[in-house]
Amino acid sequence: MSRYEKGKEVLEEIQKRPLEEIFESIDDIAPDMSRFVVEFPYSEIYTRDEVDLKTRELCTVAALTVLGTIPQLKDHIGAALNVGNTPNEIVEIILQMTAYCGFPKAINGIVAAKEVFIERDLI
Amino acid sequence: MSRYEKGKEVLEEIQKRPLEEIFESIDDIAPDMSRFVVEFPYSEIYTRDEVDLKTRELCTVAALTVLGTIPQLKDHIGAALNVGNTPNEIVEIILQMTAYCGFPKAINGIVAAKEVFIERDLI
Amino acid sequence: MSRYEKGKEVLEEIQKRPLEEIFESIDDIAPDMSRFVVEFPYSEIYTRDEVDLKTRELCTVAALTVLGTIPQLKDHIGAALNVGNTPNEIVEIILQMTAYCGFPKAINGIVAAKEVFIERDLI
Amino acid sequence: MSRYEKGKEVLEEIQKRPLEEIFESIDDIAPDMSRFVVEFPYSEIYTRDEVDLKTRELCTVAALTVLGTIPQLKDHIGAALNVGNTPNEIVEIILQMTAYCGFPKAINGIVAAKEVFIERDLI
Amino acid sequence: MSRYEKGKEVLEEIQKRPLEEIFESIDDIAPDMSRFVVEFPYSEIYTRDEVDLKTRELCTVAALTVLGTIPQLKDHIGAALNVGNTPNEIVEIILQMTAYCGFPKAINGIVAAKEVFIERDLI
Amino acid sequence: MSRYEKGKEVLEEIQKRPLEEIFESIDDIAPDMSRFVVEFPYSEIYTRDEVDLKTRELCTVAALTVLGTIPQLKDHIGAALNVGNTPNEIVEIILQMTAYCGFPKAINGIVAAKEVFIERDLI
Repeated sequence: MSRYEKGKEVLEEIQKRPLEEIFESIDDIAPDMSRFVVEFPYSEIYTRDEVDLKTRELCTVAALTVLGTIPQLKDHIGAALNVGNTPNEIVEIILQMTAYCGFPKAINGIVAAKEVFIERDLI
Repeated sequence: MSRYEKGKEVLEEIQKRPLEEIFESIDDIAPDMSRFVVEFPYSEIYTRDEVDLKTRELCTVAALTVLGTIPQLKDHIGAALNVGNTPNEIVEIILQMTAYCGFPKAINGIVAAKEVFIERDLI
Repeated sequence: MSRYEKGKEVLEEIQKRPLEEIFESIDDIAPDMSRFVVEFPYSEIYTRDEVDLKTRELCTVAALTVLGTIPQLKDHIGAALNVGNTPNEIVEIILQMTAYCGFPKAINGIVAAKEVFIERDLI
Repeated sequence: MSRYEKGKEVLEEIQKRPLEEIFESIDDIAPDMSRFVVEFPYSEIYTRDEVDLKTRELCTVAALTVLGTIPQLKDHIGAALNVGNTPNEIVEIILQMTAYCGFPKAINGIVAAKEVFIERDLI
Repeated sequence: MSRYEKGKEVLEEIQKRPLEEIFESIDDIAPDMSRFVVEFPYSEIYTRDEVDLKTRELCTVAALTVLGTIPQLKDHIGAALNVGNTPNEIVEIILQMTAYCGFPKAINGIVAAKEVFIERDLI
Repeated sequence: MSRYEKGKEVLEEIQKRPLEEIFESIDDIAPDMSRFVVEFPYSEIYTRDEVDLKTRELCTVAALTVLGTIPQLKDHIGAALNVGNTPNEIVEIILQMTAYCGFPKAINGIVAAKEVFIERDLI
């Protein structure tokens, strides 16, 4: 299996939707960007056994709350749910981030989580 | 048990050293800062059952790698080891952060981890 | 008076609206987040005499301009007005931030201020 | 020629639109902000011969991708086109930023570029 | 009085040392950088009456705590003292930043303040 | 030529030193990190013809000035020199960043450049 195929498999498992849909907004002007996402983090990192996907996605939710990039945070809150985290666990880690990035970014993280939970009829 | 006592217990369990030592550098000019650390994140968040300490500390390592504050990152790499993470798991999560904060901060995170592992004779 | 009541009093004095309204967007999925905001910064910090509320809110406007979190910046521009700062003083501090965070974030701060001033019929 | 006139000339050459239009959203509440933009970066820096405008604007696109301020990033993607960069060069530099600021901010940069290219009928 | 002379006067009043000493580390390779600092923020902003220097410097301490640039934070903690703020007021504003930028950056701010206070025999 | 070999060639051309030396500080605990650097940005991005290495490295200097990660900024200031930029061009782009990230980070960038220029006997 090529690096691309391996990454595609993991990414679609985590995102529960086809690759084309995930990257449709950028594939026409920067097709290499989605190839990089597939071949580098998904194929090279998320496939490794050292840490399970459930924990990895919670760590990514933590990181993106601190970074403050809302579209990607919402994607990974969805991914965190897909690989077995509960809404409570996700909210808990965003709450924990208050200590590391302050209230504004943590509150924006909670708002993002709420939007994802509503889209999925979880609340 | 008071909020302070509850937070002190968890913080000392995670850090494996007495509170006075952890905050000795700031306690003379800002004693409330260490009280806030004890009473707010440690007493109110780290004590909750929603997520275990092992996962919480990995998420904090992820967050601090993105934030780039090296002294606190080193403290929490130590804490992550104290609550049961292996050096491999910690390195793995810092590697994963490359995708979210870029190579410079992730490489600085690896250098921080190496310093902690050397201090503890783990490598 | 409990920590919560003390924080609620200060927060409502600063925000000039009831607590329930301030946190309505997050209270259903993360009620502890609003409790933390009330009990920690408002009850423990904003109540202290070392610095008056007028100066505190200008400092928070400065901080949030640098941080770039627009919803919270707008909230605190409103709070800065509520505790006695003039629109001119607020604009002046955002202008000053140009030197510390560059033009893009400072200009976004000015745009945020303008939105708040329009909502309040100040311009 | 005064500092202001010199900066206005360069800024209008780069932005290809009159100054009044560029700053119309902030000029009523903070006229000094637009004067600072004209007199400081445009008059004092962009006029210097050490680096040409084409390279300067690519560097600014790189910087704003890392900073994550989308309105200014879009302005400077437009400016980068105006002074002679191709869409491909701009996309390439945003792709390169993946290594320094991670995928989320770089993907947001690509989305911003796409919006500018669509507005200009370039794709 | 020229823009440069006006800025030099304010900067030396705030920093309580000659300009040459403040910028000695960068003046040989980038003399325009120190000229920009003098002519732009000090001559154009810090000279204005809208906000007094005491409040301006507290706001700058707040901003630099969030930004995390320690050398400049220490410079402005010194400047904040020079224009009439007490050590307690400075510590208080850094404590307040905990809510907006999290504990790691706020603790690093307290450590910076302590270093300045020690250099000045204030503690 | 494999992805690794291709990236190694470009990286060593840019850095003018063997790969082993570049990554010696992290290779014992995270050998995959240096492999990622070689195989992803250097093999996949810096090898492409869309933008030349001289312009790419100026853009990276701009990005790292904004990011504020000094060790990597110094590496890329050296790399920028290696691929044909003059000290003046590098200083000029760091000066330009003042407008986008403020004076503190830009001044820290100038200090970093000075250290590199001294190490290379350029000043």
